[in-house]
Amino acid sequence: MKANSYYRLPGIIGGLGPMASVYFYEMITEHTLAKCDQDHIDLLLTSRATTPDRTAYILGQSDENPLPVMISEARRLISAGADVIVIPCNTAHYFYDGLCEAISVPVINIMVETVKYCVGKGMKKVGILATEGTVRSRTYERVCNEYGVEAAYPCDASQKLINEIIYGDIKQGRPADMEKFGRVAYELREQSCDTLILGCTELSLVKRNGHLGRFYTDSLEVLADVTIRSCGKTSIGFDL
Amino acid sequence: MKANSYYRLPGIIGGLGPMASVYFYEMITEHTLAKCDQDHIDLLLTSRATTPDRTAYILGQSDENPLPVMISEARRLISAGADVIVIPCNTAHYFYDGLCEAISVPVINIMVETVKYCVGKGMKKVGILATEGTVRSRTYERVCNEYGVEAAYPCDASQKLINEIIYGDIKQGRPADMEKFGRVAYELREQSCDTLILGCTELSLVKRNGHLGRFYTDSLEVLADVTIRSCGKTSIGFDL
Repeated sequence: MKANSYYRLPGIIGGLGPMASVYFYEMITEHTLAKCDQDHIDLLLTSRATTPDRTAYILGQSDENPLPVMISEARRLISAGADVIVIPCNTAHYFYDGLCEAISVPVINIMVETVKYCVGKGMKKVGILATEGTVRSRTYERVCNEYGVEAAYPCDASQKLINEIIYGDIKQGRPADMEKFGRVAYELREQSCDTLILGCTELSLVKRNGHLGRFYTDSLEVLADVTIRSCGKTSIGFDL
Repeated sequence: MKANSYYRLPGIIGGLGPMASVYFYEMITEHTLAKCDQDHIDLLLTSRATTPDRTAYILGQSDENPLPVMISEARRLISAGADVIVIPCNTAHYFYDGLCEAISVPVINIMVETVKYCVGKGMKKVGILATEGTVRSRTYERVCNEYGVEAAYPCDASQKLINEIIYGDIKQGRPADMEKFGRVAYELREQSCDTLILGCTELSLVKRNGHLGRFYTDSLEVLADVTIRSCGKTSIGFDL
């Protein structure tokens, strides 16, 4: 954040996926201290649902690179007045450095903010629940290492269950299979994690709809909280 | 809609109020037939919460005209690529003609679409539940007259209750007082209305949260349905 000043107009690269972006916009609205419309933050959002699939590209299953689309959407938002970029999608942060190099305004990093939040709570070891793209590319792990936090992952069979929840359930508008989710979460808890990071914004919907408790750290909540405060508003009601 | 073609990128003037815009974005996402992210429509949204209050200006309680802000937001969206404007706020449609004159792309009219929907269902008389700005300016009534439909309004005391629900409850993040709502709805039903139009998008949240039945015509649902289909997608699951 800029010292002693606030961002004026956040530009959100949304649609990655669409329902997570809806939830992010809802969170920002619900958790801003406001007595009337005009107390809320102004924001710009591009919901670019047709952005090529991030995980498919990271895993080499597709040649369609989402980075040029992300850069073009960021520039669209900046041209329209955005002075900071926010991306409510963890997997897309694989492309964070490439995006930052191509544009002229800062990008709030969901992974850095989430790990910093965990460090602030004195956590030493975190479990990562995320897409296979995020897990295999070790993007969360690199941030964890930077902040002296140990990262744990599900085994391959469990990661497959998480993939099914993200792609087979949530991205198709269905509720998450909580039996599958529970099995993976139990396995990670057994590894003595201090928290399980919901490191895919589709999994944030699992927290909302499946009523997961405070053992989970929702990266989307952390990002919404940081965004509200970065715009000079007071955030309320977060479980953080 | 353009003959034999579809809009490519709707630009949504949101934030009037913010939670209704969240709900509109959610509706579009939830009701588009989609098996993956990329099946959803792309869209641009400016959530301009700080737009001056529409009703206060229409009623002469404020000199702050929201129209210049709406024009500037529409132009922002058009410069960024939008080829049609959508405004999930009925009260703002008081400024519809002024907006259309100032910009170069069509604006889907929530009131026209809602009344056309009622006509299509063979309805002859509709009750209008809306802000005092919409009611006093008779914007819905003009559209109803054009389509040969009779419009009924709550009495002044009942309109006061609706104002309280919109401004005192929903815009402050609180649930609607359903006792007040029920009293007004009962009064309008007694006037032999074929439907009650939820002609304020804040009242759409009452339908969702208060589980209102099919007697109500939700202008926001009509607008979301038209927007999805105008972009060449198939809408699913609407109660329309």
